[in-house]
Amino acid sequence: MYELLKTEGKAKRGRLHTVHGVIETPVFMNVGTAAAIKGAVSTEDLKEIDTQVQLSNTYHLHLRPGDEVVKKLGGLHKFMVWDRPILTDSGGFQVFSLAGLRKIKEEGVHFQSHIDGRKIFMGPEESMQIQSNLGSTIAMAFDECPASVHERAYIEQSVERTTRWLKRCKAEMSRLNDLPDTVNKEQLLFGINQGGVLEDVRIAHAKEIAELDLPGYAIGGLAVGESHEEMYRILDAVVPHLPQNKPTYLMGVGTPINILEAVERGVDFFDCVYPSRNGRHGHAYTNQGKINLFNAKFELDARPIEEGCGCPACSKYSRAYIRHLLKAKEMLGMRLLVLHNLYFYNHLMEDIRLALDEGRFTEFKKRKIEEMTKNT
Amino acid sequence: MYELLKTEGKAKRGRLHTVHGVIETPVFMNVGTAAAIKGAVSTEDLKEIDTQVQLSNTYHLHLRPGDEVVKKLGGLHKFMVWDRPILTDSGGFQVFSLAGLRKIKEEGVHFQSHIDGRKIFMGPEESMQIQSNLGSTIAMAFDECPASVHERAYIEQSVERTTRWLKRCKAEMSRLNDLPDTVNKEQLLFGINQGGVLEDVRIAHAKEIAELDLPGYAIGGLAVGESHEEMYRILDAVVPHLPQNKPTYLMGVGTPINILEAVERGVDFFDCVYPSRNGRHGHAYTNQGKINLFNAKFELDARPIEEGCGCPACSKYSRAYIRHLLKAKEMLGMRLLVLHNLYFYNHLMEDIRLALDEGRFTEFKKRKIEEMTKNT
Ligand SMILES: [Zn+2]
Ligand SMILES: [Zn+2]
Repeated sequence: MYELLKTEGKAKRGRLHTVHGVIETPVFMNVGTAAAIKGAVSTEDLKEIDTQVQLSNTYHLHLRPGDEVVKKLGGLHKFMVWDRPILTDSGGFQVFSLAGLRKIKEEGVHFQSHIDGRKIFMGPEESMQIQSNLGSTIAMAFDECPASVHERAYIEQSVERTTRWLKRCKAEMSRLNDLPDTVNKEQLLFGINQGGVLEDVRIAHAKEIAELDLPGYAIGGLAVGESHEEMYRILDAVVPHLPQNKPTYLMGVGTPINILEAVERGVDFFDCVYPSRNGRHGHAYTNQGKINLFNAKFELDARPIEEGCGCPACSKYSRAYIRHLLKAKEMLGMRLLVLHNLYFYNHLMEDIRLALDEGRFTEFKKRKIEEMTKNT
Repeated sequence: MYELLKTEGKAKRGRLHTVHGVIETPVFMNVGTAAAIKGAVSTEDLKEIDTQVQLSNTYHLHLRPGDEVVKKLGGLHKFMVWDRPILTDSGGFQVFSLAGLRKIKEEGVHFQSHIDGRKIFMGPEESMQIQSNLGSTIAMAFDECPASVHERAYIEQSVERTTRWLKRCKAEMSRLNDLPDTVNKEQLLFGINQGGVLEDVRIAHAKEIAELDLPGYAIGGLAVGESHEEMYRILDAVVPHLPQNKPTYLMGVGTPINILEAVERGVDFFDCVYPSRNGRHGHAYTNQGKINLFNAKFELDARPIEEGCGCPACSKYSRAYIRHLLKAKEMLGMRLLVLHNLYFYNHLMEDIRLALDEGRFTEFKKRKIEEMTKNT
């Protein structure tokens, strides 16, 4: 299902075959939390900016509109009109970061909806059932993401529970994929490695979950406050203990430089809210680093955000116009920036894949980081 | 410049030739107040939904980004990347409705910016200069729109001043169009009829301004709180006193039914914020009347907003999906509704033109109103 096409050092150039089409890796998944990209971006727009995979959040969709509603409407692909791969997270991360009054037990987590306070229970089986109702291409295992401030004892205990939960996820998905009315009977399950910034815990856990022979593995619990150097150190340590012949997904990462560094360390799936969140705040990614379109120096700047960029914003509109839209609080300003930023990320990944294909990733990475940081 | 192609009763089917292309009338102008349609809609989108004319507000653009900035960037067409006709209002209406601490004198109006409180003066010459800097296709005369609650004496005095201001506008535009660095040397000036709901004042004013032989005439100061019946009564009275062989523009109107009634009375230019404002609040226009997509009955409704509609929303997305987007406060929901509503208005006008072409407008209007009101 996953073809490892080429390597350069630890970096991987791969291809994941799914029931919704092929994913060329390294890939950046575009985040559409509640079945829509923030910034008024539709699935039609996603095609135009060359998105391969759309990522939606199980927790949000479970609360609104409800996964049962999505299933009745034919699943998430039909609901949002997207025929390419979709990855859904497990809901775990949002339960631990957004929901109120949570109580973690062996069977799962009791929590309160951040929308209306209603009491909800979610464990491995519930997460799998919700993701099965959504019918995503790739479902993520239900895990706990322990805060890195936790003590070793807590993290070890938490990681052991996450392993037990992963086995329950695997069993439940296998059961669900065999039911007659399942939306996507070929849904794939990715396991998640945890362990905070404790290398030994991470490595032991990686070895244990690798034995379950899942279609892919993620590294969770990073980019949650630790330094970039700590993150790279954990990747150096743990990626070699995850199966090389399976997709390797670094959850929630990150800046263009984080991505280049992680690709070098063997990661080939990424997702991050930065391009859309920064776009909504007036920040645009360019090959010379980020620029803030609110800046007065762009008032009369008739150039596009980036010369030569083929995105819907740059192919028509000027920095001066987009700056005006932002100042006037016109939603169009955010939309154009989000489209540019996602296009930038998607094409950065394309350039990375090409560099890997041509055996020049190391040089490409070096030059790219130099370019992007020389003005800072 | 304006061809009167056909009439049916008082209804006019016309064609206005401008330096930015032909406008087929009756036409609905799409309102982009600050050089952008609210709801994250771009000029590229406007082409896709068959918009003929975009309308921007002089007051807003004078304050932000400033008309001098727009001129330096080549004018409004270049700034927002729109090569079809643009109409700019005079700024008068906003000065009288948005600005603070206004003081009306013979020379013009002293007021405070609603953005930063800075003191500004705008008279007929200033309004023409600003609109000349914007380089719109059609500039509107600077007028006062007296509140209909005002006494006859005030309205008569105000209308007389508006006539004096119109003559100054005509002289100033003529001067500006002859300057070497003017953005659009073929800018057209439309005069505005005022007089509140006093028929005799309206008629006397219409006759007076008709003598100035301007390229078009608008009826201002309606749809500002009076009843629909009062508005129709004023149109019945005043339109016959405006030149039939010039465009007749009813400012700020209105609902689909208002438009059908006004076309029957000889109006052929319209603009209104309803389609975008209602879209942003979850309301969609259909041939069976307006629907509120927040309504729970659409939760599982897999149909488009309107069967057979060719707009970007209806050609892909369901009522259930758009309802979800609205409930989740995703900007995409608003954008899709605004696109649908503007498309609906633009195509209503197309149907009106076709009915006029084929000499069946009276029957078309009757049937359309029946359809749109039968569920209410
Ligand atoms: Zn771009
Ligand atoms: Zn539609």
